[in-house]
Amino acid sequence: MTRIDVPDGSPFGIANLPYGVFSTPGAGPRVGVRVGDSVVDLAVALDDDVFARPSLNAFMAQGPRRWAETRERITELVQGDVPDAAVADASEITLHLPFEVGDYVDFYASEHHASNLGRLFRPDSEPLMPNWKHLPVGYHGRAGTVVVSGTDIVRPCGQRKTPADPAPVFGPSRRLDIEAELGFVVGVGSPLGRPIPCEDFAEHVFGAVLVNDWSARDIQAWEYVPLGPFLGKSFATSVSPWVVPLAALEHARTATPPQQPEPLPYLREKEPWGLDIEMAVSWNGQVVSRPPYRTMYWSPAQMLAHMTVNGASARTGDLFASGTVSGPEKDQRGAFIELTWGGREPLRVNGEERTFLEDGDEVAIAATAPGPDGSRIGFGEVRGRILPASCAPGNERAG
Amino acid sequence: MTRIDVPDGSPFGIANLPYGVFSTPGAGPRVGVRVGDSVVDLAVALDDDVFARPSLNAFMAQGPRRWAETRERITELVQGDVPDAAVADASEITLHLPFEVGDYVDFYASEHHASNLGRLFRPDSEPLMPNWKHLPVGYHGRAGTVVVSGTDIVRPCGQRKTPADPAPVFGPSRRLDIEAELGFVVGVGSPLGRPIPCEDFAEHVFGAVLVNDWSARDIQAWEYVPLGPFLGKSFATSVSPWVVPLAALEHARTATPPQQPEPLPYLREKEPWGLDIEMAVSWNGQVVSRPPYRTMYWSPAQMLAHMTVNGASARTGDLFASGTVSGPEKDQRGAFIELTWGGREPLRVNGEERTFLEDGDEVAIAATAPGPDGSRIGFGEVRGRILPASCAPGNERAG
Repeated sequence: MTRIDVPDGSPFGIANLPYGVFSTPGAGPRVGVRVGDSVVDLAVALDDDVFARPSLNAFMAQGPRRWAETRERITELVQGDVPDAAVADASEITLHLPFEVGDYVDFYASEHHASNLGRLFRPDSEPLMPNWKHLPVGYHGRAGTVVVSGTDIVRPCGQRKTPADPAPVFGPSRRLDIEAELGFVVGVGSPLGRPIPCEDFAEHVFGAVLVNDWSARDIQAWEYVPLGPFLGKSFATSVSPWVVPLAALEHARTATPPQQPEPLPYLREKEPWGLDIEMAVSWNGQVVSRPPYRTMYWSPAQMLAHMTVNGASARTGDLFASGTVSGPEKDQRGAFIELTWGGREPLRVNGEERTFLEDGDEVAIAATAPGPDGSRIGFGEVRGRILPASCAPGNERAG
Repeated sequence: MTRIDVPDGSPFGIANLPYGVFSTPGAGPRVGVRVGDSVVDLAVALDDDVFARPSLNAFMAQGPRRWAETRERITELVQGDVPDAAVADASEITLHLPFEVGDYVDFYASEHHASNLGRLFRPDSEPLMPNWKHLPVGYHGRAGTVVVSGTDIVRPCGQRKTPADPAPVFGPSRRLDIEAELGFVVGVGSPLGRPIPCEDFAEHVFGAVLVNDWSARDIQAWEYVPLGPFLGKSFATSVSPWVVPLAALEHARTATPPQQPEPLPYLREKEPWGLDIEMAVSWNGQVVSRPPYRTMYWSPAQMLAHMTVNGASARTGDLFASGTVSGPEKDQRGAFIELTWGGREPLRVNGEERTFLEDGDEVAIAATAPGPDGSRIGFGEVRGRILPASCAPGNERAG
């Protein structure tokens, strides 16, 4: 038997208990829970086959009563002796994508981010579109290219055209960017025709992850009218490996900023689902931004209510992300296009100038949230390194 | 043993042999092939478990050599005696969604449709955006709400706002529309970083279905800037139950219309994948439009090449649709917003006036393609009926 030691101040204390999917040299992907510097193999520890699977989906589909009961059992378990066979060292495991993604939706819920991008992409118009304060603007992204933290990101190739170019050119993106976001994972879906009201949020959403929605701004700027972002985003979206259960975020709950004009009734929350989560974006190891999630205009409960109000069904494994988290200050912006103001105001990173990502650069996004008694719980991080593009040759220009 | 009789002129002759998933009162969903008015149970007829499943995905993933070999075996089989246990009457079965949808992408590949919608949605600008002739514009839709033909469509609720409204109102969509499209189903995917060139189209795509991309134009018009359509589309997308194999469309292949300016090299086709498919849209039983697929500007091989050129992976079950098929003539338009010019020019349907869909209306989209020796092969149809909305009360206006 093993007594799991949780170091003082660990972001993975027993108030957190995030779930992930891990493998070891001896055994394939299965569900574990992170405690301190250890991972507890739940199929072994709880003797339950629902955890002996390569994704969280089956467990998530069991619903909130089972989630609560399991959390309680784990809390008891890890405070006593745990069978040796159920404990692995977190530094000796491989982490996998923790859930099979159903649909992936990306919102645009930060007023600061939406205003900044409006100014940069459409300098001649009002930065916020007329709909922005009436509904959480969002769109569907590519579920099949959601990858787990640590997956290398190959610089995408594609068409770009600046107003000065007579025709589009093809090649590696020159304006490769990040978007620091929080993502929410649906555990219990809803059938067609059954919207999920704000107050049912915790009956459906299992937990949260960090998201880096990699974005090729030059590809995006050329392609996105009128149907929205497509190839500028679809090459990869990274998520953190540990899914923090909603129950661990109780102490983070807070009101959203005042919403004026008052939203339509289906978007009004009785209990607020704003979240006081502190994020940090590191570029080659240097923190360049600290986006505050509490500044997000729309809450995740409002996002889910909106996403289903037309009768759209939701499924176990659906992932919806907040959109870039940007605060009001310059060093709180969650995308490099904002931090460098379209590339016109380079950042100094470890003594080097940066506007957008260069090959070999690495980005890590981390976050913590208030826990009980002044403690903090951690999301861990979502990390990715840029590899050089490998465009097919001969594609550069039209003939 | 049974000899399957194929009526003269049947759209499901042996040059077609489309695959679907069916169940009978005695047995659950499994893969069948349609021949004349019969369905052949492939798990029984070919003694192969890959067909004893509720979706085509496992078979589709086996790749083009297996598809060809299976098609050959079925062709031989159905011309001889088939075991009784392997044959069902097509009128006595239930048809299911034929494949599990990975990602769903919708393109916008008809020049006539894109121009018409540009004129209607953005009357003060050029109808075609500058990017339109350089790349197949597309976006991701909601995979989880793809339903099989025959599924009733509940009128969606949502926000709408005309320029005259001081604020958005909430309620049932008043401008519920269709989009008549062709959809392509990926059999063999590709990993991250491995684009699928135009010439490899038939190595990856298994077959085609009819698609009705139901659209709530009032919801769409208010929400779609700047990130594209979302709730105006995500409530339901219907597909036909029979997946016509690519091999059955050999005689339909034709050149696309001239593409000027010449597209970038990755979008150039050596062998054309334009398709000479005749579609017909029926509104409450009356044909109101005959969209000609051969007028589509971008071919499906170009769509797939574009969708993956940034390194995005593709998966078995990915569905990509053409976008509305509209020809140059008024009675060739594949959406009611075009047929009625934004509702300003009502159609007479069975003696009644129609602009957009009313509760109880039913739409069926059918299609045929040239087969060998002057014959035609059929896609069957994708059909859906509109049920009244069931919005939560008290949501109509902001407080």
